[in-house]
Amino acid sequence: MQKIFVLLELNDEEREAFKAAAGDNEIVFDNEKDKFMSNQEADFFEDADVIIGQPKPHILKSIPKLKWLQIRSSGADKYLKPGVLPEGVVLTSATGAYGQAVAEHTFAMMLGIMKLMPIYRDNQRASLWRDEGNALTPYGMDVLVIGTGDLGSSFAKYCKAFGAHTIGVRRDPSKAAEGIDEMHGLDEIGELIRKADVICSMIPYSEEMVKFFNYDRFMSMKKSAIFLNAGRGPIVDCDGLYKALEEGHLFGAGLDTLDPEPFPKEHPLWRQQRVFITPHTAGGDHIDLTVRRVNEIALNNLKAYLAGQPLKNVMNG
Amino acid sequence: MQKIFVLLELNDEEREAFKAAAGDNEIVFDNEKDKFMSNQEADFFEDADVIIGQPKPHILKSIPKLKWLQIRSSGADKYLKPGVLPEGVVLTSATGAYGQAVAEHTFAMMLGIMKLMPIYRDNQRASLWRDEGNALTPYGMDVLVIGTGDLGSSFAKYCKAFGAHTIGVRRDPSKAAEGIDEMHGLDEIGELIRKADVICSMIPYSEEMVKFFNYDRFMSMKKSAIFLNAGRGPIVDCDGLYKALEEGHLFGAGLDTLDPEPFPKEHPLWRQQRVFITPHTAGGDHIDLTVRRVNEIALNNLKAYLAGQPLKNVMNG
Repeated sequence: MQKIFVLLELNDEEREAFKAAAGDNEIVFDNEKDKFMSNQEADFFEDADVIIGQPKPHILKSIPKLKWLQIRSSGADKYLKPGVLPEGVVLTSATGAYGQAVAEHTFAMMLGIMKLMPIYRDNQRASLWRDEGNALTPYGMDVLVIGTGDLGSSFAKYCKAFGAHTIGVRRDPSKAAEGIDEMHGLDEIGELIRKADVICSMIPYSEEMVKFFNYDRFMSMKKSAIFLNAGRGPIVDCDGLYKALEEGHLFGAGLDTLDPEPFPKEHPLWRQQRVFITPHTAGGDHIDLTVRRVNEIALNNLKAYLAGQPLKNVMNG
Repeated sequence: MQKIFVLLELNDEEREAFKAAAGDNEIVFDNEKDKFMSNQEADFFEDADVIIGQPKPHILKSIPKLKWLQIRSSGADKYLKPGVLPEGVVLTSATGAYGQAVAEHTFAMMLGIMKLMPIYRDNQRASLWRDEGNALTPYGMDVLVIGTGDLGSSFAKYCKAFGAHTIGVRRDPSKAAEGIDEMHGLDEIGELIRKADVICSMIPYSEEMVKFFNYDRFMSMKKSAIFLNAGRGPIVDCDGLYKALEEGHLFGAGLDTLDPEPFPKEHPLWRQQRVFITPHTAGGDHIDLTVRRVNEIALNNLKAYLAGQPLKNVMNG
């Protein structure tokens, strides 16, 4: 018999499904949102065989019998650091649950910018009825998606539904991705950025990519291009973006991630009319559907684990 | 030999295509945007067999040889009034050219409202980095589209691409429309409005529908519903909408058409945070693609006309 801790936001139906999946094993629920994020102590999990949730990484090494950890996030960096997981513990993530929310948000930013909606909102606040002229359409545009995992692939699918041509960039361009019409390697990135109508960064954090999008990079884009960042904030040099926009370059920019966060009040980028900022709200739990999908991934993995079948989203091995 | 007036915004390629289509017939171009909309006089068209463009309706009865008028708008009301067109003149419209632009704009409004983007824009103006909480997704939503012609059908297709279930209302529900999952007649409209997650009005103007969306109608919607108007302004009672929103009803509303237009500065609806207003810019010539499609419809009809074949979009008979 195994002891399974489930620390997820479950509705009644999901809770029953977890109980049924656990069968004769012992299952402990704790679905108070605040608790499973930060307040659990190691002794609470003392005799855990399985943890499903987001325990604090530093407590894991003190759980002697732990065999499997299913986390609720997509990124697993903090659990993969050496010394965090005891030898032999399998780690699985919730990759796949977050792509839709981030892709919808990023697409909403793009289409809104194309239709001048941030500017119309500013006009609305001034009770100003004024036609601001030409808008854009994604139809027929070349949309460059840098980073074509779950997020980038989902975003590309939406662009295609609106008639765009989608170009992907990934480390291994021989690997296709759903929604991407043509895939290229990192070596071509400079040329692709120069030619695209929309450049969408879904780049995960890495030190070599910090400030990859700087003033010169923005100036190398088409004057009419739209830039979107839904990857990591430090990839974009906000001063360089501000300078390029002030010089009349780019149709617009949409940023859901910035560096640092919260973004400092005094930075002039807040007040550049052609930039649209949202406070890192594309992903996370901002839509209920994401929570449901995380729970579904975890439940399916629990069934597989207890049946001795392979798990999905294994991050270590 | 026929004399053909083409009063369209043409690019070089399109102009050559019209010349080629005209063959040995005489073709007169006038693509100055202001002129073809308002400044043409009847004597300019004196010997016209064909006019392609948007002449003033009152001059048409003075053009003795006129056989065919291809207009550049979708609506043809002002040309269909008794006494406007001489007996026997065929009228064709540019229906089909505008749906995509209006649908894209309306979808951008809907998705932006779902992602709280008008509110994030307000926060941006105050340099405020603040998570405003839960967003919505079109995925799995019931989207009610009232008016399922070119505009409504195009909008529904985009909603389906994002996983929504689409419900249409039209006078004759036995006629299907692309993008609509289930079609209903006008008699069910009250019940459908009560149940939908999104209610999108693409209703054309008619006296009986004026202020159809009034305070009671808005209060009959789900408290969490989103209302969109991309049809005609007078269909919505703005005072009633304002009152319902102030009482905490509806997740949000997006309006591209209002009554009257321009919408008066003093109306409090401008300042209701959960309403998002654009100044009747969804359609018209706001995207270049619309102009290209109008020209394409006109060119194909010119070829058909000269070959003695049936015309598309015939509005009178």
